[in-house]
Amino acid sequence: MRRSVYRVRVGYVDTDQAAVVHHSTYFRWLEQARVELMREGGLEYKSWEAATKLGLPLLDAAIRYVRPCRFDDIVIVETVIGAAARTALRFDSKVTLQSAPDVVVTEAQIRLACVHFEHGARRIPDEVLLACVGEGFESKLVRTAGTRLTLTTK
Amino acid sequence: MRRSVYRVRVGYVDTDQAAVVHHSTYFRWLEQARVELMREGGLEYKSWEAATKLGLPLLDAAIRYVRPCRFDDIVIVETVIGAAARTALRFDSKVTLQSAPDVVVTEAQIRLACVHFEHGARRIPDEVLLACVGEGFESKLVRTAGTRLTLTTK
Amino acid sequence: MRRSVYRVRVGYVDTDQAAVVHHSTYFRWLEQARVELMREGGLEYKSWEAATKLGLPLLDAAIRYVRPCRFDDIVIVETVIGAAARTALRFDSKVTLQSAPDVVVTEAQIRLACVHFEHGARRIPDEVLLACVGEGFESKLVRTAGTRLTLTTK
Amino acid sequence: MRRSVYRVRVGYVDTDQAAVVHHSTYFRWLEQARVELMREGGLEYKSWEAATKLGLPLLDAAIRYVRPCRFDDIVIVETVIGAAARTALRFDSKVTLQSAPDVVVTEAQIRLACVHFEHGARRIPDEVLLACVGEGFESKLVRTAGTRLTLTTK
Repeated sequence: MRRSVYRVRVGYVDTDQAAVVHHSTYFRWLEQARVELMREGGLEYKSWEAATKLGLPLLDAAIRYVRPCRFDDIVIVETVIGAAARTALRFDSKVTLQSAPDVVVTEAQIRLACVHFEHGARRIPDEVLLACVGEGFESKLVRTAGTRLTLTTK
Repeated sequence: MRRSVYRVRVGYVDTDQAAVVHHSTYFRWLEQARVELMREGGLEYKSWEAATKLGLPLLDAAIRYVRPCRFDDIVIVETVIGAAARTALRFDSKVTLQSAPDVVVTEAQIRLACVHFEHGARRIPDEVLLACVGEGFESKLVRTAGTRLTLTTK
Repeated sequence: MRRSVYRVRVGYVDTDQAAVVHHSTYFRWLEQARVELMREGGLEYKSWEAATKLGLPLLDAAIRYVRPCRFDDIVIVETVIGAAARTALRFDSKVTLQSAPDVVVTEAQIRLACVHFEHGARRIPDEVLLACVGEGFESKLVRTAGTRLTLTTK
Repeated sequence: MRRSVYRVRVGYVDTDQAAVVHHSTYFRWLEQARVELMREGGLEYKSWEAATKLGLPLLDAAIRYVRPCRFDDIVIVETVIGAAARTALRFDSKVTLQSAPDVVVTEAQIRLACVHFEHGARRIPDEVLLACVGEGFESKLVRTAGTRLTLTTK
């Protein structure tokens, strides 16, 4: 399964008046991390979308906010494919700070499905699975790529 | 348990090039819906935050994207308190369209904790529980307000 | 010339760590105010865009930030058509607070041009001018809808 | 006068349903470009803000949108100090594409003033002028740092 690391500096606009990064900002970074993971796997999302008229919208997301991060921090988003099925592809990400790589800021699991912009739901196509899961992806597929991020404590 | 309805019109800026609302936009609406639920319960978040130096950051969120919504749609965010504990308050929201109130667009469960801006974690204070849960909130508290949105199908 | 009033409550997400509304947020409100002005004039931007494959992208914008506004404020965006030409339509907006209607928060002039999504630049079509300028718009057109917001003091 | 170059990849979230970057997105990039220009000049905005309780809010902005840019483009934001006075500091930016460095996407002039978070307006302090204008900044100050981006054609 592919693993990718995306680095970004927190902007002033990403903060809110609690002087921390707003919880919605993480979704920007997680999205870009997925785009970069696919690029590293050989799939340029932009040209793939244009050529196939397919897209990979979110099915669902589970995110845990462990610690805040702040303006000007450099955040590191590590992403792996947590599970891959023909119906969904799960990206598991961990956000840490460059200055404290052992401290988890945020954990997320985001599942994408595949749709054709005109004709609706599709199975995740081979080229996406190849980019995300790698050679021999057929043998690594599971039937259902469920979300496993337990959000039930506390 | 309090129930509130927040209505908002989708802006052009809320869309992305797939011609649907970007998945991060829902977090804007869900946040405003929580602010309005508390206001209806008698708690003005702005003045409460200023007076107490307390805040209600997200612990975690689970969100399921069922159908897209689009520019100029009027979306309805119905929010109820799904569970209330001294450690966390869970807001359960359902997003539908004004034009199709029976069709779920998005479902989310978002849990908030309480922090003091200088002194760290706090129990959810009475005035917040009163606003969100109502009179006699003590008898309705659970020990742990776990997230119950199952994200494991498919 | 049409005049319209758009009201919106400032969200937490709209603020930054200076505890004021981030300067980019105003562009969200100004955009929605333009959409509402056109709707009041009889043009639903969404269906017009879909039917004609035309759009009204920004040519330029001039904005003056006079006073900050803050979380939970209700802001009022008053918009008029400042000038209308076949090449550009200028929307002049003034942002005030509901709680202090005589105090200007922000002033902006934003000019839109017309493009066809496939074929490039177009003249502003009659239905847009009718919605924005009103009956007899032909006699009110100017040759160039220049920006008049002086940004040169201080 | 300092000159700085900031590079950023366009995200999916930065686009709208016209399949181009939304006009408000540029303000994110321009802001980050200013932060980086100051950092290169020796001023870390984050620690300066924390130490002094000063900030540099926008006085005004003039922006011209010349050509669209799109998802996955790498944009280059070149920024220079266009004029520096004790009352305002003007940042002049030009946005181009890495793939077409001679084609201007957007031009902007943004003026910042200085405020103390509790005590109101302040003169731009020496350390900011040193970082932005360089050694001998005193001799380069003008009385008024007016905006010169002509937005009156068409």
